Amino acid sequence: MAVLECETMNIVDVIRKKRDGGTLTREEIQYWISGTVSGAIPDYQVSALLMALFLRGMNDEEAATLTDVMAHSGSMFTPDDLGGYTVDKHSTGGVGDKTTLVLIPLLAAAGLKVGKLSGRALGHTGGTIDKLESIPGFHTNLERPRFLELVRKTGLALADHTADMVPADRILYELRDVTATVDSLPLIVASIMSKKIAGGAQAIVIDVKTGSGAFLPRLEDSRRLAQALVAIGSALGRKMAAVISDMSQPLGRTVGNALEVREAIDTLRGRGPDDLAALCCELGAELLVFSGKAEDRASAAAALGKLLENGAALAKFRELVAHQGGDVRVVDDPRLLPQAARRVEVRARSAGAVRRLDALSVGRAANLLGAGRTKKEDAIDPAVGVEIAKKIGDAVEKAETLAIVHVNDEANLAEALRMVESAYDLDSSGARHAPPPLIVERILGASQA
Amino acid sequence: MAVLECETMNIVDVIRKKRDGGTLTREEIQYWISGTVSGAIPDYQVSALLMALFLRGMNDEEAATLTDVMAHSGSMFTPDDLGGYTVDKHSTGGVGDKTTLVLIPLLAAAGLKVGKLSGRALGHTGGTIDKLESIPGFHTNLERPRFLELVRKTGLALADHTADMVPADRILYELRDVTATVDSLPLIVASIMSKKIAGGAQAIVIDVKTGSGAFLPRLEDSRRLAQALVAIGSALGRKMAAVISDMSQPLGRTVGNALEVREAIDTLRGRGPDDLAALCCELGAELLVFSGKAEDRASAAAALGKLLENGAALAKFRELVAHQGGDVRVVDDPRLLPQAARRVEVRARSAGAVRRLDALSVGRAANLLGAGRTKKEDAIDPAVGVEIAKKIGDAVEKAETLAIVHVNDEANLAEALRMVESAYDLDSSGARHAPPPLIVERILGASQA
Repeated sequence: MAVLECETMNIVDVIRKKRDGGTLTREEIQYWISGTVSGAIPDYQVSALLMALFLRGMNDEEAATLTDVMAHSGSMFTPDDLGGYTVDKHSTGGVGDKTTLVLIPLLAAAGLKVGKLSGRALGHTGGTIDKLESIPGFHTNLERPRFLELVRKTGLALADHTADMVPADRILYELRDVTATVDSLPLIVASIMSKKIAGGAQAIVIDVKTGSGAFLPRLEDSRRLAQALVAIGSALGRKMAAVISDMSQPLGRTVGNALEVREAIDTLRGRGPDDLAALCCELGAELLVFSGKAEDRASAAAALGKLLENGAALAKFRELVAHQGGDVRVVDDPRLLPQAARRVEVRARSAGAVRRLDALSVGRAANLLGAGRTKKEDAIDPAVGVEIAKKIGDAVEKAETLAIVHVNDEANLAEALRMVESAYDLDSSGARHAPPPLIVERILGASQA
Repeated sequence: MAVLECETMNIVDVIRKKRDGGTLTREEIQYWISGTVSGAIPDYQVSALLMALFLRGMNDEEAATLTDVMAHSGSMFTPDDLGGYTVDKHSTGGVGDKTTLVLIPLLAAAGLKVGKLSGRALGHTGGTIDKLESIPGFHTNLERPRFLELVRKTGLALADHTADMVPADRILYELRDVTATVDSLPLIVASIMSKKIAGGAQAIVIDVKTGSGAFLPRLEDSRRLAQALVAIGSALGRKMAAVISDMSQPLGRTVGNALEVREAIDTLRGRGPDDLAALCCELGAELLVFSGKAEDRASAAAALGKLLENGAALAKFRELVAHQGGDVRVVDDPRLLPQAARRVEVRARSAGAVRRLDALSVGRAANLLGAGRTKKEDAIDPAVGVEIAKKIGDAVEKAETLAIVHVNDEANLAEALRMVESAYDLDSSGARHAPPPLIVERILGASQA
């Protein structure tokens, strides 16, 4: 095997430096990333470096440089491409998290621009693209000129990530996935932020979930991730804010793709569940303040609430659906969304108050029913999922409905029902239980604090 | 990239376990090594595991298991193949280390069997095979039946490592070399010992060098390596001893392939330098005691000294040369060995006593003259090298010869002369300096202590 050399740089020296706990320079990171994308550095050297990075870590400056170099590894959008000040939002993902479906038309209604690029992540339910695709005809494979035109003219569009943007992330992620180097904070941060940076947004809000249904269930881990994302984005000149939000129980009252679209439409109509609407207004408020369109978070959140009430956000959603080939009749009649063959209720075995509703168990049940995917190739059933009737703090009578399972293929029904039932912890002592606070913490970039 | 799976085992889980500091089981190590040799586990996963092993280490039991599994990754020699009790010797390598050339005929003369397999290592001078190949006609590419026949009938043979033995070591070494994972104690130990185990020896003595010219210059590192080699070999049922010997100055009085063969022949004739003869007798004594052919080390060393004096060892060397195609006239007339075009003396600039003679500087000078190789493909010049007239403790007159450089290509002569001169530290204060002790420490296996 040949040792790759470029004048004074050698990948083995870079690996050795990180192996011994050293700090990589911009030149070393550029050499590594460009060699990875071009194929000049073979994958066995990249994976050795990834493991050294996993075990030795990176400081914030290194992680910011890696993010920047990765963002520049392919095509990028400029503010000019997007027609001005654009914002973006990222969620670390949770059970019943349909925030993006509500938030991007809401932001567009507030006069901001959102050019959203999404992937088809693995998870208990599909990602934003999968959810929107449960609207008949809706598609996200927009040609780039069309995508940019929609952002410039209508303020919003949503498309798949294309291979020409941030190719370094795709290559590194594939290697990380098969070398046990996924769960590294600087690598996670660089992966998330490089795509945001390449997407051209000037202000970014991050929704880091915490609790059993989150990617990082423990608060201290969620906090570390939120802080790192904010630090790296700020270091690269972006206005950054992060919200750590509760994912101990599912967000809203639906888990499953078409079910979540229906709930998002309800919310855009001002009739959604309080937690979902509140979270969308909180996240959106950060961006409204950053853009200068609001003085402070409170007035920003109030303005956004109004746009949900007065139909302006719903109108933007309708535009989005129409421009991306979807059947707009769905917006007024969500019954046109895919529906499961059968609904099965999970009832309380005794009276009490809901002490806990485990998000992870509900998510697993939805996945088992076919709402999510565990491998990239898996197909998703848009109709199936779990509708949640009772959440933490609710009082329950004996035999009252706790949740409704929407099922097509009944093979896993019994197991899914068992999981949903086990998600509930009912307290029959008569004690009251408060729902957990939705917003656990807020983290602002140094320049915005 | 596909994740390789075999029933209940998955290489990503094995990587993750070691990444997190876990201890690998025999099944996991077997799965890894067999997948590496078959190619079922791609090199990017192997290199990630190697980096995790580098940074997390292995305990002695894991290292012994890895050694055993690697030894069994290809063909092995049994005591039956070799015709009975066989012994082996390994040196970690040093400047002027021609011990093997003397030791193996000496052991054969003492009635032990030595089937020695060697590689062409990188280094300041060539390895044992390169040195012997400076004898016209000598070759080491013996067919296996011929190799075994020579060991059985004459007690000694020396051949190249063949690709069918310990293929795991070759594959892992090539990956380690390009992923900065060479300098890992358990991986070094497994690499050395797997080849010894596969070679079939029942008793093994290790010569671990310490000092500037050694692979591990610091005594504590040499000691850790010696202890690990002895522990792992003992755990696998071999009689093990290790000697830590001085490599602060070169061994003997020659550095360079043909020059070292000449010195080895002198030693086999009972006229070699004291340090070389003493080290050979010390190392051989361990094996003689293990084999039951001597009661204790002192009587064993004395018996070996006699075999150097009485010509028995030289006769075995003559047999070795004859059986492997070499020109036996060399044994009686070393002037038939390749000779360099020119000899250039390095003289003392002032009178004094040699306080230090840096082995590394002498080794680098020899390498610069063409005696060694830095890449596998490099050709070696057998004739060149450095002859050492003065060693530590010797008194020197002004302008007296310190060393003689044997050179063919004069391009690097000036630099080589400078290096040899800088290797000497002369003390003109009139103080006396004792040579450093040759044997620094002895380490025996637990079962032999």
